[in-house]
Amino acid sequence: MPAPIHLSPLQFRALGHGMIDWIADYLEGVEARSVSPSVRPGDIAAMLPADPPARGEDWGAILADIDRVVMPGITHWQSPNFFGYFPANGSYPAILGDLLSAGLGVNGMMWATSPAATEIETRVMDWLGRMVGLPESFLSEPREGAKVAESGLRGGGVIQATASEATLVALVAARARIMRASGTRERLDEKESNLLMYASNQAHSSVVKAAKIAGIGEKTGTGEHRCVRQIDVDADFAMNPEQLATAIDTARDQGHIPFFVVATVGTTGSTAIDRLDKLGPICRERNLWLHVDAAMAGAACICPEHRWMLHGIEHADSFSFNPHKWMLTNFDCAAMWTRDRASVIDALAIAPEYLRNPASESGAAIDYRDWQIPLGRRMRALKLWFVLRHYGVEGLQAYIREHMRIAGLFEEWVRADERFEVAAPRSITLICFRLRPRPGEIAEQTDARNKALLGAINATGRAFLSHTVLPIGGGDSPQRFVLRMAIGGARTQERHVRAAWSLISGLAHNA
Amino acid sequence: MPAPIHLSPLQFRALGHGMIDWIADYLEGVEARSVSPSVRPGDIAAMLPADPPARGEDWGAILADIDRVVMPGITHWQSPNFFGYFPANGSYPAILGDLLSAGLGVNGMMWATSPAATEIETRVMDWLGRMVGLPESFLSEPREGAKVAESGLRGGGVIQATASEATLVALVAARARIMRASGTRERLDEKESNLLMYASNQAHSSVVKAAKIAGIGEKTGTGEHRCVRQIDVDADFAMNPEQLATAIDTARDQGHIPFFVVATVGTTGSTAIDRLDKLGPICRERNLWLHVDAAMAGAACICPEHRWMLHGIEHADSFSFNPHKWMLTNFDCAAMWTRDRASVIDALAIAPEYLRNPASESGAAIDYRDWQIPLGRRMRALKLWFVLRHYGVEGLQAYIREHMRIAGLFEEWVRADERFEVAAPRSITLICFRLRPRPGEIAEQTDARNKALLGAINATGRAFLSHTVLPIGGGDSPQRFVLRMAIGGARTQERHVRAAWSLISGLAHNA
Repeated sequence: MPAPIHLSPLQFRALGHGMIDWIADYLEGVEARSVSPSVRPGDIAAMLPADPPARGEDWGAILADIDRVVMPGITHWQSPNFFGYFPANGSYPAILGDLLSAGLGVNGMMWATSPAATEIETRVMDWLGRMVGLPESFLSEPREGAKVAESGLRGGGVIQATASEATLVALVAARARIMRASGTRERLDEKESNLLMYASNQAHSSVVKAAKIAGIGEKTGTGEHRCVRQIDVDADFAMNPEQLATAIDTARDQGHIPFFVVATVGTTGSTAIDRLDKLGPICRERNLWLHVDAAMAGAACICPEHRWMLHGIEHADSFSFNPHKWMLTNFDCAAMWTRDRASVIDALAIAPEYLRNPASESGAAIDYRDWQIPLGRRMRALKLWFVLRHYGVEGLQAYIREHMRIAGLFEEWVRADERFEVAAPRSITLICFRLRPRPGEIAEQTDARNKALLGAINATGRAFLSHTVLPIGGGDSPQRFVLRMAIGGARTQERHVRAAWSLISGLAHNA
Repeated sequence: MPAPIHLSPLQFRALGHGMIDWIADYLEGVEARSVSPSVRPGDIAAMLPADPPARGEDWGAILADIDRVVMPGITHWQSPNFFGYFPANGSYPAILGDLLSAGLGVNGMMWATSPAATEIETRVMDWLGRMVGLPESFLSEPREGAKVAESGLRGGGVIQATASEATLVALVAARARIMRASGTRERLDEKESNLLMYASNQAHSSVVKAAKIAGIGEKTGTGEHRCVRQIDVDADFAMNPEQLATAIDTARDQGHIPFFVVATVGTTGSTAIDRLDKLGPICRERNLWLHVDAAMAGAACICPEHRWMLHGIEHADSFSFNPHKWMLTNFDCAAMWTRDRASVIDALAIAPEYLRNPASESGAAIDYRDWQIPLGRRMRALKLWFVLRHYGVEGLQAYIREHMRIAGLFEEWVRADERFEVAAPRSITLICFRLRPRPGEIAEQTDARNKALLGAINATGRAFLSHTVLPIGGGDSPQRFVLRMAIGGARTQERHVRAAWSLISGLAHNA
């Protein structure tokens, strides 16, 4: 190819060093920026030409557009004043790992296409599984002598891009297993439209999305996603186990085939903790696949004092949490383990001739292509490996504990202010709170005042919170608007949370 | 959090500059390395401890393990001597874009969560769509006056992680559309097990995988994936259009519901080009969704002289190709366009309260979460933007043309050597070839000699090729083993291809 079109290594070194420095400057200075931007739809696109350049542009022009075009339209997820949704942790070690992955540019779809990509991932996922207290049956290489799954199942960990994909993978594995278990596909086939899955009404939207993608739930003709049965929650917003058991047994009596349950350890709305010790035996006795979605809260289990959240995990078939949320490993990095790798592979394996190789056929190697939705895969294990080695277990525990401590402070401040109330039990670092109803005020007025407060907070640019609705009181209670203060940003310290509370309580004077 | 556990910005600058330099050194020197490693399953894992470190490790130890642990297990996809599978292009501009994305650490799941992430992607995907000659109806902002889809459909582009996901997204969108088009879901529901989809027997394995995930094809009880109908190919390994038309009409007469066709522009086996101008009208007249998978070959359409491959694209409903294969944009970057965004969104949209925001509800903004399988998303547009701006259209055309030129040379050398034969028409830069059958030799012996030759080539470490089987002669012909020489590595130049041929033809003396 004509030489001039590629950057020279010398140019790359200079530009690369400059980009590293830009990132260091950005992250060190990000707290001074307005957390959310003030652009309207179309503003950013309008700064870009309608057509690509015919000839390559100068790097001066390209880099200048980072500040001119990109920055005005960025919501600063890395700001210590970002408290919206759930955090998206980045860290310097993870950035270095991601950079190395981009430099190597390997496709780890199979063991044979870069053995190190697969084997480092397998080993590091075993590390991480032990760090959060998973039973050895979830690991690729359980310790000798460990009591591994009674039924001869093999487990293992894999990095998915997102928790959504982990849920979808678990769903299709569960479907593959129930279809296999029913003896012949024929007997089951006529009933497949009767496959039923369950989650609480507080479960993440990805559960219904997975059902839509997998084609579960639009077959009965009586409405959308009727095959995703939503179970009510108790006053703590955790799934009611008795209602789950009854729903399964009733459906089975009616000829349906309940096959899959998603329990949530740390719901998106309020980080409510579904009780695995209650749900697990219900699923196990009835032969349903239990997937545990701990996307945000799972990281807390690095600390032994938070592992109560996983009490009963030995009954689960798969488990997932996102190091990219609260464990300093840049997006995308969703850790998933299963006790039953065979069902995952059964659901997802493809073996075209052009990918055949001796290592795959020997059975001695893992081909992660068959553990995930896509075929190709980046070497995401590098960033996770770097994070675990740089921080060490104790460093990550200290990180989690500090966020827990300052979340406790924020909760105290809310409780001490009689204008506010805490709207849900706090399990980890998310505080759901709202302005209390005034005497005589109807619920919609309270909601409106809280909505206005949220808008006022975010309009300052000094903090960013998001919201949800919760059935306060549990069961069939009406949905009420609450503010979500999600603490867990990589750079968030006590002073940022203190400043946010000062801002919120000040604005509440007018709310 | 305790200060010492985070890297200081100063440390990050030093480590980051070092990592940039490591990558520059690696890429400049990669051609001297053995392309594929010689490790056995377990060798790499054995170099790692069974447990994570309790305390953070020194960066000296971490970085030393790149050379000690990682490199012995790497297949060097960035080597100019890598000719296996399809290439995985990396480039310095793309690495810089990916690095910036990691540094910003934003989640572009919705417009509101970082407007620039969405709007730059939308604009750059319009650029790229025009570059490969897509009709304006596939773009988010078609030119004023352009004849856009007759039926009031809106199009648009989106970056998926992989072509596999693009196929799955197209499949579920097609299913959503046929279910909507049939009037009521109820009327269709009872027949959903009769949904049928079509691709040639040379289509990528991700078509069957998408069907498995989506739950299409395991419901009839007469075998796996019976609902994915494989259409025979002609002698050029392209789908036989008449057979497709007949298959659809016959199935419809029998009460089935044909709904989805995947045409492949550049099959994985031999880069055969399914004829869109023939297949398109068949699908359009019969109201089937036509998805075009041009994962590898699509990049060639940046050059006008190769756009014949997309002749008839105006009949398609969706189209995808991978800039991460042959357009210098690091994995993952799969470009996808649809003429019918409403069906995609219908299939994938979820709108939980905790993600509601005014921009989404105004309809003025794109929320790409509803165009993809996962919820979260990295800002992948940056690397694509950097690549298009650094190289410019003409630079990328020159890049493609140079690979086309040297692929032509390789083909000539094979044709000039009477021991060999070219086993498939060459559409772009993949040459399928094999040792000719010897007089009196049975086909299995020819296959065995070719297999042995491939093994001998790859064992040298001086080149890496992969293989496939092809029904030479088309139709029901038996599958014969062929070597695949896939040219298109970012650093591959004439001298590398020349050296590979010299190696191959030398080893053929003993084959």
